[in-house]
Amino acid sequence: MSLIVQKYGGTSIGSTDRIEAVADKIAKFRKQGNDVVVVVSAMSGETNRLVSLAQAIQEHPAPREMDVLLSTGEQVTMALLCMALQKRDCGARSFTGGQVRILTDEDHTRARIREIDDSRIHAELDSGNVVVVAGFQGVDDGGNITTLGRGGSDTTAVALAAALKADECQIYTDVKGVYTVDPRMVEDASLLDTITFEEMLELASLGAKVLQIRSVEFAGKYKVPLRVLSSFEEGEGTLISVEEDSNMEKPAISGIAFARDEAKLTVSGVPDVPGVAYKVIGPVSDAGIEVDVIVQNVSADGTTDITFTVKRSDSERARDILNAQATVLGAADVSVDARIAKVSIVGVGMRSHAGVASKMFKALADEGINIQVITTSEIKISVVVDEKYLELAVRALHSAFDLGDPNYQPKQDKQT
Amino acid sequence: MSLIVQKYGGTSIGSTDRIEAVADKIAKFRKQGNDVVVVVSAMSGETNRLVSLAQAIQEHPAPREMDVLLSTGEQVTMALLCMALQKRDCGARSFTGGQVRILTDEDHTRARIREIDDSRIHAELDSGNVVVVAGFQGVDDGGNITTLGRGGSDTTAVALAAALKADECQIYTDVKGVYTVDPRMVEDASLLDTITFEEMLELASLGAKVLQIRSVEFAGKYKVPLRVLSSFEEGEGTLISVEEDSNMEKPAISGIAFARDEAKLTVSGVPDVPGVAYKVIGPVSDAGIEVDVIVQNVSADGTTDITFTVKRSDSERARDILNAQATVLGAADVSVDARIAKVSIVGVGMRSHAGVASKMFKALADEGINIQVITTSEIKISVVVDEKYLELAVRALHSAFDLGDPNYQPKQDKQT
Repeated sequence: MSLIVQKYGGTSIGSTDRIEAVADKIAKFRKQGNDVVVVVSAMSGETNRLVSLAQAIQEHPAPREMDVLLSTGEQVTMALLCMALQKRDCGARSFTGGQVRILTDEDHTRARIREIDDSRIHAELDSGNVVVVAGFQGVDDGGNITTLGRGGSDTTAVALAAALKADECQIYTDVKGVYTVDPRMVEDASLLDTITFEEMLELASLGAKVLQIRSVEFAGKYKVPLRVLSSFEEGEGTLISVEEDSNMEKPAISGIAFARDEAKLTVSGVPDVPGVAYKVIGPVSDAGIEVDVIVQNVSADGTTDITFTVKRSDSERARDILNAQATVLGAADVSVDARIAKVSIVGVGMRSHAGVASKMFKALADEGINIQVITTSEIKISVVVDEKYLELAVRALHSAFDLGDPNYQPKQDKQT
Repeated sequence: MSLIVQKYGGTSIGSTDRIEAVADKIAKFRKQGNDVVVVVSAMSGETNRLVSLAQAIQEHPAPREMDVLLSTGEQVTMALLCMALQKRDCGARSFTGGQVRILTDEDHTRARIREIDDSRIHAELDSGNVVVVAGFQGVDDGGNITTLGRGGSDTTAVALAAALKADECQIYTDVKGVYTVDPRMVEDASLLDTITFEEMLELASLGAKVLQIRSVEFAGKYKVPLRVLSSFEEGEGTLISVEEDSNMEKPAISGIAFARDEAKLTVSGVPDVPGVAYKVIGPVSDAGIEVDVIVQNVSADGTTDITFTVKRSDSERARDILNAQATVLGAADVSVDARIAKVSIVGVGMRSHAGVASKMFKALADEGINIQVITTSEIKISVVVDEKYLELAVRALHSAFDLGDPNYQPKQDKQT
């Protein structure tokens, strides 16, 4: 018998029919003898409906009242799910964040969990009930309702799993798990059985948005085994584990991530003196523009070039800021290229496998793809290329690192 | 400076525009230097939406989860109203029933308030904030969310006013107050300045559904001055007071109530022995049929007749029950008349004014209206008449007791 925390998000419980389907899954799981704690989000569309109501009144409502408003979304779902479970003769009781009590700081709309009281949940589990908890919410010391911000329900699930010392935290989504690459781009993308937390963090931040980064960090920190799986289809999903896979045959690379919609800015010919990188990035960051990759190479003649990427929609604004700074910087030129894409390979295996980088660069060269920028971390190598090569680059790398699904059956265009 | 509890119901806050209008009213009141506690219902339509969601899953959901679900309705309103108040630079903070803490018994969906902790509200009022409280809900000893049942928000408002020793509890509705008679039936119906709790109870139970009976009982018990007024129009409304009006000129009658949709059943020729009334009414009541008026007159020849009224929709069922009992009862006949109506005059003044009854009967006789049944209480006289005379009877009595609005201007059909 295991203690499992399961989390169901917006689309998994987007209608009363979907709630019934999820209840089937949970009831079956319970009948197998497991203790089950379920964390739910608001039904899809509900949060937007509530936000619209607030904005009809005030553009920037007080965060405290916004939390009071938004927290009703999960409360509706948890009550409906309990009804659906009880209909299946599966005892169930719902609890808001405040009822559990999930204690957070006072930072409304983006509160952080401080402490979870597990006594009430344990008492309910001991009585044989499934415990359904509202995700995304808690209370502060003063008893005020707080919310955890976007993706907060994943965080609630992981935090509960940590507090309850659950055997596994299962995040049900609309995908079957974590793939080696986006299956919409590469047909034979394969589902990963396991992935490490570090790899998942790199993949998540690079655009494979299966899980919220914050919950993955949380799970890694508290060593909570985390599983991503589909609420629509059967399957074991992907286990995100603390342990590196001991399988000797594990490939060096776990997956390939990519980002479109970025733009590259280069400030060239700036004096190669201490503080110049700050002078370039500082004003951009102060303007609230998120900076992704930053690269500076060694300089030859006392000047250097600094390149960084931002969201494409921010590129004009970033360029204007840099142009205004150009004389202060003593820069020769500020250039923008909005037609770029970023491709990354991720894997803890590259720590021990030499030649991963060269294999990557060769695969791209074989396709005639020019690499504009290279950055690396311990378990990731990213390159910036012309956006027209994005698909080609991703497919070439997926194939070069043998990531394809061995059971993949290509679709037949015509009968032979 | 006064401490006022105001309650706004569903139609008063049926849209964000309406919430803004209510916020105008409250902010103005606050700026006049009053301490204000506001109790809100769910926005009109919201409770029905939530009930539909539940019933899509289960016909009879568990009451505990139903309360979790329904209590979100008021929580949404209270957050939106606080936003609207803050937009008007009027400090405001919202509290759920559990946050206040409004402690109830454990009787989900129809809980009764046991105790209210007023410390948090007083602290907020002392900080200069308007306090917005979710109506209709509380928590039990175990911290479970409870609801008070239909009309529960009125009860919350009265209970808060009692706990806070408020100077007045104002119930805002879609009518201007309590009238001498339904203005849809009698054009010159006049708005009452004051009415006693006892009169209000008789009028409410007789169909003038301005306030929930339960909240009036509560207000009477705790001597909370209760005022009914419109959230759509200006005006002082009607004060429901503990004190009888000391005005010598106060008329004997405060208002006229009536009920359509009733049916009259008569069991005639039953032996006039102890227990016979129970034998007639018992089985009807056991079948869950609500019995209104019951009359039994003295008997002449060892038998008697018992007459009672029920909702018209229950009359067939009540007759079948009585027919099945007829031999046990030894009744000569069971007859049903579904074409009746009940008209009542209500007023504490009739205690001290002789001749009220005879004035009533004369007014009806002058119009040729036959009285079928008469019942009386200390402050009420009810008669049952043929339903076709209902409007005529009500207008005749309204006029006979001089209840018409002296400022009423009849509409001109044509110019003279």
